Amino acid sequence: MATEREAAIAAVREDVARLHGELVRYDLIVWTGGNVSGRVRIGDDPHEDLFVIKPSGVSYDDLTPENMILCDLHGNVVPGTPGSERSPSSDTAAHAYVYRHMPEVGGVVHTHSTFAVAWAARGEEIPCVITAMADEFGGPIPVGPFAIIGDDSIGRGIVETLRGHRSRAVLMQNHGPFTIGVSAKDAVKAAVMVEDVARTVHYAREAGPLIPIPQDAIDRLYDRYQNVYGQSSDARRDEGAAS
Amino acid sequence: MATEREAAIAAVREDVARLHGELVRYDLIVWTGGNVSGRVRIGDDPHEDLFVIKPSGVSYDDLTPENMILCDLHGNVVPGTPGSERSPSSDTAAHAYVYRHMPEVGGVVHTHSTFAVAWAARGEEIPCVITAMADEFGGPIPVGPFAIIGDDSIGRGIVETLRGHRSRAVLMQNHGPFTIGVSAKDAVKAAVMVEDVARTVHYAREAGPLIPIPQDAIDRLYDRYQNVYGQSSDARRDEGAAS
Amino acid sequence: MATEREAAIAAVREDVARLHGELVRYDLIVWTGGNVSGRVRIGDDPHEDLFVIKPSGVSYDDLTPENMILCDLHGNVVPGTPGSERSPSSDTAAHAYVYRHMPEVGGVVHTHSTFAVAWAARGEEIPCVITAMADEFGGPIPVGPFAIIGDDSIGRGIVETLRGHRSRAVLMQNHGPFTIGVSAKDAVKAAVMVEDVARTVHYAREAGPLIPIPQDAIDRLYDRYQNVYGQSSDARRDEGAAS
Amino acid sequence: MATEREAAIAAVREDVARLHGELVRYDLIVWTGGNVSGRVRIGDDPHEDLFVIKPSGVSYDDLTPENMILCDLHGNVVPGTPGSERSPSSDTAAHAYVYRHMPEVGGVVHTHSTFAVAWAARGEEIPCVITAMADEFGGPIPVGPFAIIGDDSIGRGIVETLRGHRSRAVLMQNHGPFTIGVSAKDAVKAAVMVEDVARTVHYAREAGPLIPIPQDAIDRLYDRYQNVYGQSSDARRDEGAAS
Repeated sequence: MATEREAAIAAVREDVARLHGELVRYDLIVWTGGNVSGRVRIGDDPHEDLFVIKPSGVSYDDLTPENMILCDLHGNVVPGTPGSERSPSSDTAAHAYVYRHMPEVGGVVHTHSTFAVAWAARGEEIPCVITAMADEFGGPIPVGPFAIIGDDSIGRGIVETLRGHRSRAVLMQNHGPFTIGVSAKDAVKAAVMVEDVARTVHYAREAGPLIPIPQDAIDRLYDRYQNVYGQSSDARRDEGAAS
Repeated sequence: MATEREAAIAAVREDVARLHGELVRYDLIVWTGGNVSGRVRIGDDPHEDLFVIKPSGVSYDDLTPENMILCDLHGNVVPGTPGSERSPSSDTAAHAYVYRHMPEVGGVVHTHSTFAVAWAARGEEIPCVITAMADEFGGPIPVGPFAIIGDDSIGRGIVETLRGHRSRAVLMQNHGPFTIGVSAKDAVKAAVMVEDVARTVHYAREAGPLIPIPQDAIDRLYDRYQNVYGQSSDARRDEGAAS
Repeated sequence: MATEREAAIAAVREDVARLHGELVRYDLIVWTGGNVSGRVRIGDDPHEDLFVIKPSGVSYDDLTPENMILCDLHGNVVPGTPGSERSPSSDTAAHAYVYRHMPEVGGVVHTHSTFAVAWAARGEEIPCVITAMADEFGGPIPVGPFAIIGDDSIGRGIVETLRGHRSRAVLMQNHGPFTIGVSAKDAVKAAVMVEDVARTVHYAREAGPLIPIPQDAIDRLYDRYQNVYGQSSDARRDEGAAS
Repeated sequence: MATEREAAIAAVREDVARLHGELVRYDLIVWTGGNVSGRVRIGDDPHEDLFVIKPSGVSYDDLTPENMILCDLHGNVVPGTPGSERSPSSDTAAHAYVYRHMPEVGGVVHTHSTFAVAWAARGEEIPCVITAMADEFGGPIPVGPFAIIGDDSIGRGIVETLRGHRSRAVLMQNHGPFTIGVSAKDAVKAAVMVEDVARTVHYAREAGPLIPIPQDAIDRLYDRYQNVYGQSSDARRDEGAAS
């Protein structure tokens, strides 16, 4: 019989495998690009937690709960677990860094979605000019530093940009969006929404000057959406865990 | 045996649940955004009517006739009816306001479709430069005021902009399109068409000056389409009710 | 047993019903917009021919060979034939005009596809800067006059623009593309290709000056494609009839 | 029992037929446009190799391993083999030229994908401003000469542009992208990625100045991706052969 720990791992494997399908559904990735991970809460100390991430270079058609890979918060594959014979996503170190330094984060997503990357290639934050963006991100989507794979610089750039920021999304310069959430699903939602606003604001600004939303209206929208929207006061957060 | 009233409610539940699928098919929404509602005509006094709307924050894959929510024209959920354990769409108050003040309206739709929102973020009406737009909307698509959720200001902005206007669509500034129709289906059609014209006119104008359509041609096209097009002189209106 | 005439009508009904699906597949239409028709060759005199077109205002999901409508070359529905209880497409008069005046035409298609309409709203022809366009259209896509529904002016505009022109597509000003072909399938192919080149040349020109293709290269490409491409020297033309 | 040679041919037929589906999935082609080919390694001398390519003008829905066409490296159909009654793709000579002159190439793909063609119509290379592009192509995507079908000039233009270049993609001026790879799958991946970067950099530059990536960062990214990414040090190359 599965222990509570095993059940928790199995549930996150299931979630993470399934959620990759949302990246396909919303056209956020091509080929084997992009990745979703989800934290497994193990005990009271978040440093003992694990996370589940997809294998590197495997087709989205072939992702299953069994070939998801279980890692510790330093990005090491847990030996002897299902999927451990494969290499985890090449962005595993960045995910691990985020989980290690932001205990409140339950999910991380990275994509190369078209419009979010376009803003990132100019190193330009997305201004908050639509109410859905105020709801979801509480202001502009910030840009993180230029950092390349190989050490902790991507993870550090994400954490330094998002810590204390309302936005759950950061556009890493010349690279693309990383999003965080209370769960893998919540981070996927942020990845879907960041591309949606990146696209909409791109087209809006292309055709003429934008009307800013007053800061106090942004504040009221953000506060309301985070606290009231959905099926209960915790809805947006809860729905990350539910299906 | 179902009474006439029950049958009417069941038919609208069915319609509204199914029509959300059209928002997905035409790429007008992401995640749980957007909403469709339909009026249930109860008796001679339109103030006794009810309407059906989707629940808040529920995945489009999970919408069924049974979890649609029945509300009175003040936006209160009718207790004890299927779906009433859930919260209705966060835009319910705006829908209710429209039904209360425009007895001829049988359906209301709201989306954050990309190009319609782009025009809304500039607070710019869409000029009528294509014949399909003259057919469907009889002129430009107007912009409504900036208004945020929490009181009647969105509903009032919709009604004040659309009352007496040919257009069944309004672009609420910094927010997005709301459309109305003689039925839920008719309002969904308007939501599909407003995004189509918003996109087409965006691309058209981006590349050079547009040729206006003379007002008398717009008038003739609008008149003809509203009265002749389809399978009978009432066709466009009727097809809202039919499937 | 079906006569030859009946078999010919049945084959075109089948073709035309099925080909509407290609308009959906290539995203050329929304809702009930757009229409495909195909000529039925009856005898030696093309003026005795008939054509098959879709009904007006019917969902693309519901189009079948049986509800396609048989018309004579003046656009009158042939009484007592399947589908004849419905009204044919509101563009039937334009199709009929083309068949009446261009005996070589076997199919006509009309859509409101986004980028083709965008060029039409500026009244601007699409310049021939890509080899696929030289292959398919032999030069620029021309613009036809502004004409509105209600008399022969749309049909006349199409015929006057395309007669003697290499292009099988015309952008009717402020309205949209009409395409012709040796068969309904050939006209659908032209509708797919005109949107493809309208989109590609739009994006190309948006970002900087285009390199023209020398006229003699256009001539050679057009000649080769019309005469050599495909499974035999008649391939492009033949494949209109085949599936 | 199948000889090793027959088995090799059958495997490439299967691969090439299936991979055309990826062109559809990623929206790289319309109608019967585009083509994928794969080399069959026959012995020690690459000049004895064969390749498999799709037939000309056949619907993507109808492509099967059996109707793929086997050619020698001069583009002649191998008589008496399955599919040999049909004409091969009109781009067969260009594919053959590449295989003849670049023995390391195992697959060639050609499409008219929208954004890649848009850059080609301006004769403009795509600058390397996003890390995914540095990974995959190691720098800018180059432009090849204007060349039209009918002799070796397209093949020669591809080979002269790509030989010694890091990029596996070339934008043939006024025409479109050709990509190469160690296998047909690898070339298809390059075709998918070249459209992805063509689109992203188009939108990025449209809205303001791009931030260049320093050359040494491009070099490190390219080196790492070619040697480390995926399930083993040969992963990117290997996955071309695997499914």
